[in-house]
Amino acid sequence: MIIVMASSKKEDVEHVVQRIEELGYKAHVIVGVERTVVAAVGDERGKERLTALEALPHVEKVFPILKPFKLAGREVRSEDTVVECGTAKIGGGHFCVMAGPCSVESKEQVNLSAQIVKDAGATMLRGGAFKPRTSPYSFQGMELEGLKLLWSAGQAVGLPVVTEATTPEQVAIVAEFADMIQIGARNMQNYGLLRAAGKSNRPVLLKRGMMSTINEWLMSAEYIMSEGNPNVVLCERGIRTFETETRNTLDIQAVPVIRKLSHLPVIVDPSHAAGRWELVLPMACAAVASGADGIMVEMHPNPEVALSDGQQSLKPRRFEELMAAIRPLLDVMKKTL
Amino acid sequence: MIIVMASSKKEDVEHVVQRIEELGYKAHVIVGVERTVVAAVGDERGKERLTALEALPHVEKVFPILKPFKLAGREVRSEDTVVECGTAKIGGGHFCVMAGPCSVESKEQVNLSAQIVKDAGATMLRGGAFKPRTSPYSFQGMELEGLKLLWSAGQAVGLPVVTEATTPEQVAIVAEFADMIQIGARNMQNYGLLRAAGKSNRPVLLKRGMMSTINEWLMSAEYIMSEGNPNVVLCERGIRTFETETRNTLDIQAVPVIRKLSHLPVIVDPSHAAGRWELVLPMACAAVASGADGIMVEMHPNPEVALSDGQQSLKPRRFEELMAAIRPLLDVMKKTL
Amino acid sequence: MIIVMASSKKEDVEHVVQRIEELGYKAHVIVGVERTVVAAVGDERGKERLTALEALPHVEKVFPILKPFKLAGREVRSEDTVVECGTAKIGGGHFCVMAGPCSVESKEQVNLSAQIVKDAGATMLRGGAFKPRTSPYSFQGMELEGLKLLWSAGQAVGLPVVTEATTPEQVAIVAEFADMIQIGARNMQNYGLLRAAGKSNRPVLLKRGMMSTINEWLMSAEYIMSEGNPNVVLCERGIRTFETETRNTLDIQAVPVIRKLSHLPVIVDPSHAAGRWELVLPMACAAVASGADGIMVEMHPNPEVALSDGQQSLKPRRFEELMAAIRPLLDVMKKTL
Amino acid sequence: MIIVMASSKKEDVEHVVQRIEELGYKAHVIVGVERTVVAAVGDERGKERLTALEALPHVEKVFPILKPFKLAGREVRSEDTVVECGTAKIGGGHFCVMAGPCSVESKEQVNLSAQIVKDAGATMLRGGAFKPRTSPYSFQGMELEGLKLLWSAGQAVGLPVVTEATTPEQVAIVAEFADMIQIGARNMQNYGLLRAAGKSNRPVLLKRGMMSTINEWLMSAEYIMSEGNPNVVLCERGIRTFETETRNTLDIQAVPVIRKLSHLPVIVDPSHAAGRWELVLPMACAAVASGADGIMVEMHPNPEVALSDGQQSLKPRRFEELMAAIRPLLDVMKKTL
Repeated sequence: MIIVMASSKKEDVEHVVQRIEELGYKAHVIVGVERTVVAAVGDERGKERLTALEALPHVEKVFPILKPFKLAGREVRSEDTVVECGTAKIGGGHFCVMAGPCSVESKEQVNLSAQIVKDAGATMLRGGAFKPRTSPYSFQGMELEGLKLLWSAGQAVGLPVVTEATTPEQVAIVAEFADMIQIGARNMQNYGLLRAAGKSNRPVLLKRGMMSTINEWLMSAEYIMSEGNPNVVLCERGIRTFETETRNTLDIQAVPVIRKLSHLPVIVDPSHAAGRWELVLPMACAAVASGADGIMVEMHPNPEVALSDGQQSLKPRRFEELMAAIRPLLDVMKKTL
Repeated sequence: MIIVMASSKKEDVEHVVQRIEELGYKAHVIVGVERTVVAAVGDERGKERLTALEALPHVEKVFPILKPFKLAGREVRSEDTVVECGTAKIGGGHFCVMAGPCSVESKEQVNLSAQIVKDAGATMLRGGAFKPRTSPYSFQGMELEGLKLLWSAGQAVGLPVVTEATTPEQVAIVAEFADMIQIGARNMQNYGLLRAAGKSNRPVLLKRGMMSTINEWLMSAEYIMSEGNPNVVLCERGIRTFETETRNTLDIQAVPVIRKLSHLPVIVDPSHAAGRWELVLPMACAAVASGADGIMVEMHPNPEVALSDGQQSLKPRRFEELMAAIRPLLDVMKKTL
Repeated sequence: MIIVMASSKKEDVEHVVQRIEELGYKAHVIVGVERTVVAAVGDERGKERLTALEALPHVEKVFPILKPFKLAGREVRSEDTVVECGTAKIGGGHFCVMAGPCSVESKEQVNLSAQIVKDAGATMLRGGAFKPRTSPYSFQGMELEGLKLLWSAGQAVGLPVVTEATTPEQVAIVAEFADMIQIGARNMQNYGLLRAAGKSNRPVLLKRGMMSTINEWLMSAEYIMSEGNPNVVLCERGIRTFETETRNTLDIQAVPVIRKLSHLPVIVDPSHAAGRWELVLPMACAAVASGADGIMVEMHPNPEVALSDGQQSLKPRRFEELMAAIRPLLDVMKKTL
Repeated sequence: MIIVMASSKKEDVEHVVQRIEELGYKAHVIVGVERTVVAAVGDERGKERLTALEALPHVEKVFPILKPFKLAGREVRSEDTVVECGTAKIGGGHFCVMAGPCSVESKEQVNLSAQIVKDAGATMLRGGAFKPRTSPYSFQGMELEGLKLLWSAGQAVGLPVVTEATTPEQVAIVAEFADMIQIGARNMQNYGLLRAAGKSNRPVLLKRGMMSTINEWLMSAEYIMSEGNPNVVLCERGIRTFETETRNTLDIQAVPVIRKLSHLPVIVDPSHAAGRWELVLPMACAAVASGADGIMVEMHPNPEVALSDGQQSLKPRRFEELMAAIRPLLDVMKKTL
C-alpha cells in the first residue's frame, strides 16, 4: 500500500508511520521533491484498515499495490483451469457453446430448442426457469416446472444444462436439476447467493455485472471459491455505457485481461450485450478470435412470439449460420468444440 | 408503443398490425416520408410481447411510450408520501438526518456514536450489522450481535434506527430490531430480497444501485410496493462513471427527476458518493437545496481506526459543522428537521 | 512516480533503476512481501518518459503521484482567484449569473432577452453567435452579425457579454465584441483554440468536456494559463453517463473538488446538464449551496419557437422565479450577486 | 418525429398540432389509453424546431424516428465504399494494416519503423508529427519536420502514410505530405477542422471521440462529406467507461453497427483502446473476426524509450507475431491484405 502525504511535516509523517506499524506493516518513508510517500509493506488483504488513513487531513491518497483476489488469481495457478460439466469441457483449449431460449415457455418449445441447438453443434443447453425481471408485472419464468422441463429436454438430446438461481434457497433445487448453476449479472454481488453457490458441488457460471469492474468480478469468483467450489466459469455479457445503439457495450478486452489475471475460463454472451439479433454472429466470431473459452447464445424457435428477449434471440437458421461461421475460426485458434 | 418499420412494404406492415392485434392492442399505421410507423394502443405493461417484434427483420425499433411503474408513479398519487419511522417523518416538508457509523464495531463505539449524532440534531441512527463487502476476506459486520447493539444504542438516546438486510432471511430479524430496513445499492435488483421487504411491515430505505437508471430504481420500489408495503424511501448514493477523483458521481439531478416521476420521498447519501470526507458537507448542503427529503451521513467517533469506510466518515466536530451548515438552508427551503 | 514490478528478479529491478536514473530521477527500491516497488523521485511533469517503462514485461504498472497541473493548482496560489469581466466579478465571494438565449436569432430577440435578464438580476448576458452543432444541416448561428447584435444588446442594458469561439481564427473577433470568450464542451481539448484563447487578453470561460475528467479539465485550463492568460473560469455542464432521464449527469461534486485542487472560480450550467427546463431551478439552487461561484442559464423570450435548445430554456417568468429562489440561498452562503 | 403529450386536453393537443403544421409537417393524433401521441410527418432533418416543443409543459417527450445522417447512411448507397489511398485500398474486402510509431522522433527512428512494418506486411505507415497532448508540458511532436521525415520514410519503402492534422490551418500542409489525413479522437467534433478536411482532396481517417456515440460519429463523417469529400474511413479506438484495467473500452460492437448503418469502411485501433501492449494482438484478431476493414497499430523499434505511448507500442518481434496471427483469420473472413 502506498500512502501519499498531503503534508510533509515530521509529526504528520510520524503519525502515519506509527499507525502503519500498529496495524502490523513495515513503513518505508520516501521524501520526494514535492510530496512525501510512505510505503506500507505487508499483506494488503486487510487493506481497509490502511485505507482508513485517508481520514487524516495530512494524507492525500492511499493506493493499493496488490490485486485483492487470491484463489482466482493467475499467480496461485499458472495453468488454465478446465471446468467439466457433464459431457462438456470449458477452458484449456476446449470451447463451449451454450445455446437455447431465454426462458423455458413450454415443453414443446424447450424440447424443440434442445433438438435444434444439439443438431447445430451446441455443447450445452441454456434456458431460464427462475427469471430476475426488472418489472414485477413481467413473466417471471415457469420456475420449478420450467427447471424440470429444461432438464428433461437436455436429457433427451444428451446435452448438459445451465440455468439461473436467483436466491440462496433456489441453489439446492437448481443443483439437483441442472449441470451448472448460473449467477446472473444483477446478482454478481449478491453475496448470500455467491456463498450458497460456493457450497454446492456444481460448477458455477458467473456473469459479470453490467457496471462491475473486472476486479470486482474476480472478487465475486473469490467468494464462490473461498467456500470450497473451484469450478467457476466467468461470462462477459456487456457493460453499461453512454452508447445507445446497443443495449450494453461488449467489453471484449475483458477476455485477454481475465486470461492474464486469472486461470479461470472466460466465455462471452453476445446476445445480452447487443440486445439485437443482427450483432450476435459477428460478435460470436470476435469472441472466438479474442481467445474466449466459449459463448452463450439465445436461440428461440420463433423469436417474434418469445415471452422474453425475443429481439435478441436467433432463429434456428441463423443459429446454424453462426455455428458455420465460428468453426473455421476455432480451427485457426486451435480450439476444439 | 411505437413500432418503427425498417420496410414499408404492405405485407410487412400488415404482419406487424396482425401481431399487434393478436396481442390485444389496437394498431394505427402512420405512413411517413421515409419511414412507416405503427402505434400500438393499449396497456404497455405487458410490453415484452410487443418488444419481441424487434426480432422481425422488417422492424427497425420498438419504443415504449409509458413509464413501466404504477404504484410508485406520481400519476396515481399527486400528494407527496410522508413515511413515518418511529419519531421521524420523511417527506412532505419533513427533513430527515440519518447518521452514524458505517459498521457497528463495539458497544462503546455505537453508544458513543448515537449520543454524538443525537446531540448534534440527527433524527435517525444508522449503522451496519450485516455488511455486504466486495471481498470475502474483509470484516463482514457483527451481524446479530451488532444489530442488537445498534437497537440498544438507539433506544438509549431515543432515535429510531435503520440498518441493512442483505438476504431474504435476514428481513424478519432486521424488522424486529430496527425501525427501517435498508436495501443496499448492490442489492437494488435482488428481487427475492425486495419481495421479502415488501412483505414486512417496516418502512424500507431503497438505495439506488450504482449501475441503475432512475427508471429501474423506481421499478425496484414497485417490487416492494406490489407486495403491499407502501412505505418506501429512495436514497441516491452516487452512480458509476469515468471520473476518478470521487468514488462515485452524485446524481443530484435525480432528486427533482424523482419528485416529478414519483410521490415517494427521496434522500441523498453524500458519504458513499464521495468516498472522501471533505466533500460531505458541501454535498449535504446541495442536497438540501435540490429539494431532497433527507440525508444519510457516516459519522465515526474516530474515523482513522474505523473497520470500514473510515476515509468517508466525518469526525464528531465535522458532523456538528454539517448540521450547522444545513439548518439555515432548511429554513430557506421551508423544511423542518 | 511509483513503478510496481511484475518480476522481483535482481536484473529486472536493476534495469528499471538504471532507466530511472538515466531519465534524471532518483530511484528507491522497496521490497515487499509479494511485489517489489520502485519509487522514482523528481519532477513528474515529464512523466511520459517514465510511463513508457510499462512497455517492459517485468513492469506491471506505473502510478503517478503528483497532479499534472501547475499554474491552475491550489498549491501555487492559496487564495481564490477573482476574475473581473467588465462590471462582473466571479470568485472569492462574488457570484455571477450569466443568462440569455442559446442562440442569437434576431435583433429583437436578443434585445428583449437582454432586458429581461437584466431586470431579473443577471450580471452577464450570454448568447451564441458561432454555434458548434452536431449536424451540418442545423442552424449554425448568425455568426459575425449575431456577435455584433449580442454586443449591442449588452451595451444597451449595461451587461458584459460572454459568447463562444469555435476556431482559433474566431478568437480575435470574439475578443473584440465580447467581454469573455467561451470555450465549449466539445472543444475542451481543442489545443489550438486553447492556445489562441491563452494569447487573448479577455477572460475565458472553459466548459468541461462531457466526458472529460476533472484532471483533464484543469490541464486544459493550464494550456490557457501557460500562454499568459490567468483569467480562467471553469464551468461544469454535465458529463455523459448511462442515465437517460436527463441529457447529461450534472457532476455537482466537481465544485468542491475543484475548490480543493484549484484557485480558479467554478460555475455551473444547469441548462445543458438537464436538457429539460423543469430541472434548471432546483439545480441552480443546488449549485449555490455546493459553493459554486456562479451559474449560466438559458432563457428565451419564447422557448417553443427557439432555433436551438428550446426544451431546456426558461421562459422569462420562470427565470424570475429562479432568481427569487437563489437570492436567500446566496445570503446563507455569504455570496454577493 | 413522435410527440408524447403530458396532457390530453383538447386545447393542448390542438396547440401542438398547430405548431407542427406551422413548421411544415403533417400531424397525426393517436389517442391512447393513458397518453395522447402526435406524429409529425415530414423531413426530420430540421428537427430542432420540433424538439423545442418539449419546452411546453403539456408535452412530455419528443422522439425522433429517422437517423440524422444522409450521405454517410447505408440507405443512400447499398454497396460498401472502397477508399483508395495510394497503393492501399480499404473496404469491400480489402483489409488495411496501418502501423508505425506513435510519434515521429528522429529520421533514424521513423526510417527503421517504416522498414520493419513494411517487411512484416503492413499496407500503410502511421506516425504523429502534430501531436495533441493533454499537457502543454509534454512533447508536442516534431511538427513540419516530423511530417517531412514521415513522408520520406514512406516513400523509401513504398508505403502510403497517414498522419494527424489538429487545426484547420494544418490541413493543407498535411494534405501535401501525407496520403491520408487523420482526425483524432479529441477533435471528432472540431467542426472547423472537419470542414477543412472535407474541402481537401485526401481521404480522411476519422477516429471516434472517446465520449461520442455512434450516431455523433457518423454525423462528423457527414460534416466532411457535406463539404464534398466522400472518402472517409471510420476508426473505433475505445470509449470511456468506468473500467480501469484498460485505458478505454474497445467498443467492438461498433463494427457491425456501422456496417449496418453506413457504407463507409470501419477500422479498429487496439493500441489506444488498451493502453497496454499485451492486449493488442488478441484485439487485432477480434477486430478481423468482427468484420472490420483494417487495423491501426502502434509499433516502436524500442518502446521503453519512446517519447509517447511507449506502454502500448509493440516491439518489432511482437508486431510480426500479430501479422502472423491475423493472416489465417483474414483467409477465413475472405479479406485480402
